[in-house]
Amino acid sequence: MLMNAGPTNVSPRVMDAINQPLIHFMDPKFLEVLREISAGIRYVFQTRNQYSMALTGSGNCAMEAAICSLLETGHTFLVLVHGFWGERAALIGRKHGYNVVELRVQRPGHLFGFKRIDEAIKAHKPRLMYVCHGDSSVGTLQPLENLANVCHENGCLLLVDAVISLCCAPLNVDQLVIDAVFSGSQKALSVPPGVSFISLSPRAVERMKSRKTEIVSLYLDLILLAKAWCLDSDNHYKYNMYNYKYVYHYTPAVQLMYGLRESLAMVVEEGLQNVIERHQKCSLFVQKEITSLGLQFLVQKPEHRLSALLALWIPDHIDGQKVINDLCNSYGITISGGLGAISHQIWRLGFLGVNANPQNVNTLCKAFSEAINRQKNRE
Amino acid sequence: MLMNAGPTNVSPRVMDAINQPLIHFMDPKFLEVLREISAGIRYVFQTRNQYSMALTGSGNCAMEAAICSLLETGHTFLVLVHGFWGERAALIGRKHGYNVVELRVQRPGHLFGFKRIDEAIKAHKPRLMYVCHGDSSVGTLQPLENLANVCHENGCLLLVDAVISLCCAPLNVDQLVIDAVFSGSQKALSVPPGVSFISLSPRAVERMKSRKTEIVSLYLDLILLAKAWCLDSDNHYKYNMYNYKYVYHYTPAVQLMYGLRESLAMVVEEGLQNVIERHQKCSLFVQKEITSLGLQFLVQKPEHRLSALLALWIPDHIDGQKVINDLCNSYGITISGGLGAISHQIWRLGFLGVNANPQNVNTLCKAFSEAINRQKNRE
Repeated sequence: MLMNAGPTNVSPRVMDAINQPLIHFMDPKFLEVLREISAGIRYVFQTRNQYSMALTGSGNCAMEAAICSLLETGHTFLVLVHGFWGERAALIGRKHGYNVVELRVQRPGHLFGFKRIDEAIKAHKPRLMYVCHGDSSVGTLQPLENLANVCHENGCLLLVDAVISLCCAPLNVDQLVIDAVFSGSQKALSVPPGVSFISLSPRAVERMKSRKTEIVSLYLDLILLAKAWCLDSDNHYKYNMYNYKYVYHYTPAVQLMYGLRESLAMVVEEGLQNVIERHQKCSLFVQKEITSLGLQFLVQKPEHRLSALLALWIPDHIDGQKVINDLCNSYGITISGGLGAISHQIWRLGFLGVNANPQNVNTLCKAFSEAINRQKNRE
Repeated sequence: MLMNAGPTNVSPRVMDAINQPLIHFMDPKFLEVLREISAGIRYVFQTRNQYSMALTGSGNCAMEAAICSLLETGHTFLVLVHGFWGERAALIGRKHGYNVVELRVQRPGHLFGFKRIDEAIKAHKPRLMYVCHGDSSVGTLQPLENLANVCHENGCLLLVDAVISLCCAPLNVDQLVIDAVFSGSQKALSVPPGVSFISLSPRAVERMKSRKTEIVSLYLDLILLAKAWCLDSDNHYKYNMYNYKYVYHYTPAVQLMYGLRESLAMVVEEGLQNVIERHQKCSLFVQKEITSLGLQFLVQKPEHRLSALLALWIPDHIDGQKVINDLCNSYGITISGGLGAISHQIWRLGFLGVNANPQNVNTLCKAFSEAINRQKNRE
C-alpha cells in the first residue's frame, strides 16, 4: 500500500482502461480520447480554458514545459519557495538562463503572506511567478487568493503547481484567474506515473503566441502540443485521419492516456467536491491519531496543512528509517521520508486517490503506531 | 492490426508485465528493474556502455535529450537529412540556438555516400553529427560504417537515431564506435508508447561532464538521469531506499518500465540476430508481393531499404487515402500515409515487433491487394 507522497496505488478501473488495445495516435478515435481528457482537465481545474491538454512525461515535464513556453531568455522569473518544488522551479529557470528571483519562507512549514508577495512583484516586475499550491516535501498549502490581480497589474503571469493539491484541496482556476496550472497522473488521480497535464488561460496563450524568440525545446513546446491536440482555433474540429492540418509533435503514451481519461471520468462521477471532502476527512482522522501519538506536525497551523500529505517531525529518540523499513517489511506499507534539506528529520504520510478511504487510513494509523512503539521499546 | 510506421501492436507478455502492481520508484526492487533494463539496452545495442538508460517520454524526448546534453550554445551541429527525422533533429538544433548545418539528399529515397559526409565533417568541424539509421518517413537505411572514425578525427561525436531500425537491421554500437544512440518503445519492441532509451559512450559521457555551460533543460538533462539510475561510478551499487546518494530527477513511468524490461527480456530469449532475421524475412515476402502488384518502391535499391518499413509510391490513378480507409474499415488494418513533404504521394507498410510474422504480413498483403483492386475498379 503506497501511503506516501506519490506515486500512489493505481485504481483497478484505470488499469482496465490501460489494458485496452492500442490504437494509432492519429486515429480519429484517439482524438476523441484527447477531447474527453481535455474536458476532464477543464473540470478538475474548474476552468473553461481551451488549452487544456496532457503531456507524455512526469509532472516535472509539465513544470518545465510551462516555464520555458511562457518565458524568454533574460526575463525575470519570480519563484516562491516554500519547499522542494519551488527550489526545482528556480533550478529550471536558472538552467534556461532566466533572471531568477527567489522568495523564501523563514522555516520549513511556513507560508507566504500576501503582503510579501505583493511587494516582491512590484519590486522585481517579473514576467512569470511560480507558486506551488501544495508542496509535497513539507505538506504545506499556500493560499492563492488575490495573487492573480497583483500579478496581472504588473505584467506578470501566475503559474500554479497543483501536482499534489489537485482533487485534495479546493482549486478554482477561473475564479482565481490563474494563467497556467499543471498536475500529474500519479497523485490523487491514481493513474500510473508517466503523463501530466496543464491548462493555460487565454492570456497565457496570447503570451506564448507573441513570443519574440522560439521556445528553446521541441518536446516541451506547448504551442506545438496544442496543435497536435487540435486545440488551436484554426484547426479545431477540422481533424480527420491524415488530415493535412494535423501537426505531428510526438507519439503520446496512448495507454496511459486511456488511464487518465478513465480517472478523470471517475472524478466527474463522484463529483470534484466529494473527492476533495473524502481526502479532507481522511486527513482529519489521521491528524487526530497523530496528535494522540504525541507527534508534532511540520506545519503548525492546521489551515496551512495539505490534506493529503502530512509531514511529521521524527522524535529525537527514534530512528526514522527503521520505522519506514518496519512498515514496509511487516505491513507492506510504504511511507515517505523527507525530500531535500530536512530529509532525515521527517516522515511524510500520504493518502492519495484510491488510498483516501477510512479503511486504508485506519490501517496506516494502526501500523504506524505499532511500528513506532516497537522502535521505542528497542531503544 | 497496426501495420504502420508505429506504434505497433503490444505484445501480450508485455501487457501482463505492465499489469504488475505499482511500486515506489525509490524502492530497491525498482532499482533492480532499472538495472535489468540497462542490461537489456546494452544487449540490443550491442554495447558495453555504462550509461544505458530509459527516459519517460517518446523517442523525440530521447532525441532532444541527446542533442541538448551533448551540445552547447553556438556549437556546430551537422545533421544528415534523408527524411523527416533529420528535419526534426535540425529543428531541435535551431530551437536550441546551435549552428545547424544540414546535409540533404537529392531526392527522397536516396542516401549519403561516405565521401560527402567525410567532406562535410572536414569542412564544418561540427561538435556533433546526427544521422538517422532507418528513416521511417521514407523507408531508407543509411549505412553507418566508417563514420565514427572521421567524426572522432575531427573532434565530432556521432549520434545515431535507431528508433525504427533497432532489432530490424544489424546495429553493433561498439563495433561502429557510436557515441550516442537512442530508440523508442513502440517500434520493434512492441511496448506501448511513452518511454524511450539511450546509450552513451564513455567519450560522450566525458563530453557531457566537461561542459562549460549547464544543460538547458532539467527534464532532458542526461547527467541527472544517469544519477537517478545510479549509473555514475560514484554512486554505482551504493543505492538503497532513501540513500542520501540517490538523486531525484523525476518520477519515471513505472508500469511502462516493467513493459520495457519484459520486451528486452524477450529479445534476449529469442536472440537479437533471430529477431532481425524475422523482420528481414517478412520484408522480403512483402517486397515480393508488392512487386507482383506492379507497385514502385520509394527506395529503389533493395539494399538501402529499411526491412521493417516499406514506402511505396501511390499510382497516379488511385486515391491513396481511400485505400487506407478501406483497409481500416474492411479489415481493421492500419497502414501509414506519408509524413512531411511527400505525405500525399506514398503509402508506408510496417511490420514491427509482434506483427513481424508470416501470418500477419500475409494478411496485410492480401488485404492490401484487395483494397487496391477495389479502388481500381471504382475509378
